[in-house]
Amino acid sequence: MKALIFNKKLKFTDVVIPKKGKDDVLVRVTKAGICKTDHEIVKGYVKGFRGILGHEFIGIVEDSNDKSLIGKRVTSEINFSCNRCEYCLKGLQRHCPNRTVLGIQNKDGAFAEYVIVPRENIFILAQNISDNTAIFIEPLAAALEILDQVLLNGKNILIIGDGKLGLLIAYAINKAVKCNLLIIGKHIEKLNIVKKIGIKTSLLHNFKAAHQYDIVIEASGNPDALYLALQSVKPRGTIVLKSTYASIPKVNVSDIVVNEVCVVGSRCGRFSEAIKFIKKFKPDFSLFISKEFPFEKAIEAFEYSKKHNVIKVLLKMDKNNW
Amino acid sequence: MKALIFNKKLKFTDVVIPKKGKDDVLVRVTKAGICKTDHEIVKGYVKGFRGILGHEFIGIVEDSNDKSLIGKRVTSEINFSCNRCEYCLKGLQRHCPNRTVLGIQNKDGAFAEYVIVPRENIFILAQNISDNTAIFIEPLAAALEILDQVLLNGKNILIIGDGKLGLLIAYAINKAVKCNLLIIGKHIEKLNIVKKIGIKTSLLHNFKAAHQYDIVIEASGNPDALYLALQSVKPRGTIVLKSTYASIPKVNVSDIVVNEVCVVGSRCGRFSEAIKFIKKFKPDFSLFISKEFPFEKAIEAFEYSKKHNVIKVLLKMDKNNW
Repeated sequence: MKALIFNKKLKFTDVVIPKKGKDDVLVRVTKAGICKTDHEIVKGYVKGFRGILGHEFIGIVEDSNDKSLIGKRVTSEINFSCNRCEYCLKGLQRHCPNRTVLGIQNKDGAFAEYVIVPRENIFILAQNISDNTAIFIEPLAAALEILDQVLLNGKNILIIGDGKLGLLIAYAINKAVKCNLLIIGKHIEKLNIVKKIGIKTSLLHNFKAAHQYDIVIEASGNPDALYLALQSVKPRGTIVLKSTYASIPKVNVSDIVVNEVCVVGSRCGRFSEAIKFIKKFKPDFSLFISKEFPFEKAIEAFEYSKKHNVIKVLLKMDKNNW
Repeated sequence: MKALIFNKKLKFTDVVIPKKGKDDVLVRVTKAGICKTDHEIVKGYVKGFRGILGHEFIGIVEDSNDKSLIGKRVTSEINFSCNRCEYCLKGLQRHCPNRTVLGIQNKDGAFAEYVIVPRENIFILAQNISDNTAIFIEPLAAALEILDQVLLNGKNILIIGDGKLGLLIAYAINKAVKCNLLIIGKHIEKLNIVKKIGIKTSLLHNFKAAHQYDIVIEASGNPDALYLALQSVKPRGTIVLKSTYASIPKVNVSDIVVNEVCVVGSRCGRFSEAIKFIKKFKPDFSLFISKEFPFEKAIEAFEYSKKHNVIKVLLKMDKNNW
């Protein structure tokens, strides 16, 4: 099968179709999304990963010991956990210390014609969820993780960063939470996408930080943004960190102490919550899709996805679409 | 009156007795404690303060429009707030953006024969609270602030730092919370003080961080300790930051995100809680008092308090004690 492999550099190449274990499912990938984490792996920010990239995908089950699954359109939760440790037993499989992570940590990912995932990670997609909505389930779950961690209702909320994740967080909060929301960033075209659906936006250079927000969500990936977050959050307020950083932010930690700020790290979320959200709010994520590429143009798609003003780039693995 | 003044350097000198406003109280200081924050101001870590140092004190009311106060033995909350802003109205006077702070921010402190404080900040000391217990009310309130912010009961808790504050936090948690507690530090003599009362201790170089604590309280003031805290806290665990730092910690913020750690800044606490604690647990803080100096030897006391293995140093302003 064809696969997009990272081993010091990106390569689109032929590999053998992987073999599934008895509790696994073989999925023929039909579509996949390129995420910022994929870029970070390629840049060397996420150390140690070698193999097939990709963790946002949908596909059709081709083989499974549970025959009822065969032919079903599915997606998969990306953390593959041990189910025995204290985190797994608390329902926090995403924090299992023994986990592998699809296309991120010790597990081949979904930028391939086929992918193997554990049966228990599979979510069958209802017919009324389109492919181009379902492909957002993984990043949407990550956005909704914030709602699982912090009480947002009735709050003044600032989102820093107008990238894929920042925009999706703004979209999700705007739908699900009654609050006063502003998103700031450097790209007027990106901000305008969410401005059109009624979300308040501001260019970074027009924004003045004045300890005025109850909650600041840092989703820019820029290490300087943590400084801005600390200047924007109220005393006793909360900063939610969604970004991982390539370099170490130069932040005066004393500001956290003196203002008794709470800094909460936030990573992956529950797919079940993302699917509930989709059923309830019927979101239109097409506004975030910049371009779709046939899988054979994966390298080109990867380069394209790095461009200024590009948001989500999709890969079409289904040969009918090549 | 005599006062210990900081203006680029420390000076023990004569100044005029300050004049009180109508809502203020004039207190004759009888005893004061030297705190790490005092050292940090002198080292230039806390920028901008010029004037009389000192914020841990007890004394006798000499003048007040409320005549019932005169002659009473008192201490005072150190944040002087506006009582009009959103923080004051929420009972968070400690976060009033218009506040001054005794001996720390735009307000002459208590290393003097007399100090002026607002009437509303005064706490009258019950007779059965000794001077050498009452002098710990301010740092005890800071220690107990953690209990106001984070649920500690039943948790595995690590305290990093065997300085004044770390030891006091260990003492307070050990008395007030049912939990599994360990304090680590570099000074065996300091650790032994709390070991004697049944608290588990370990020297830093014998400690192995392995993401094993629900809650890590960083009270060492050493910027490297935040790295240790992140290595010691469980995924989804909490780090409480009690220390301010002179330099900027080199911390990989991605660890906070990936492990969804919550980092909570914690500063001053409520005096009312500290007084309740004293009434309930009848603590013996004498084990933390290294030495008492007559006020005229304030400079010498300041130098002494910087020494290895010295914990709390007190200044006796009451001339009967000089």
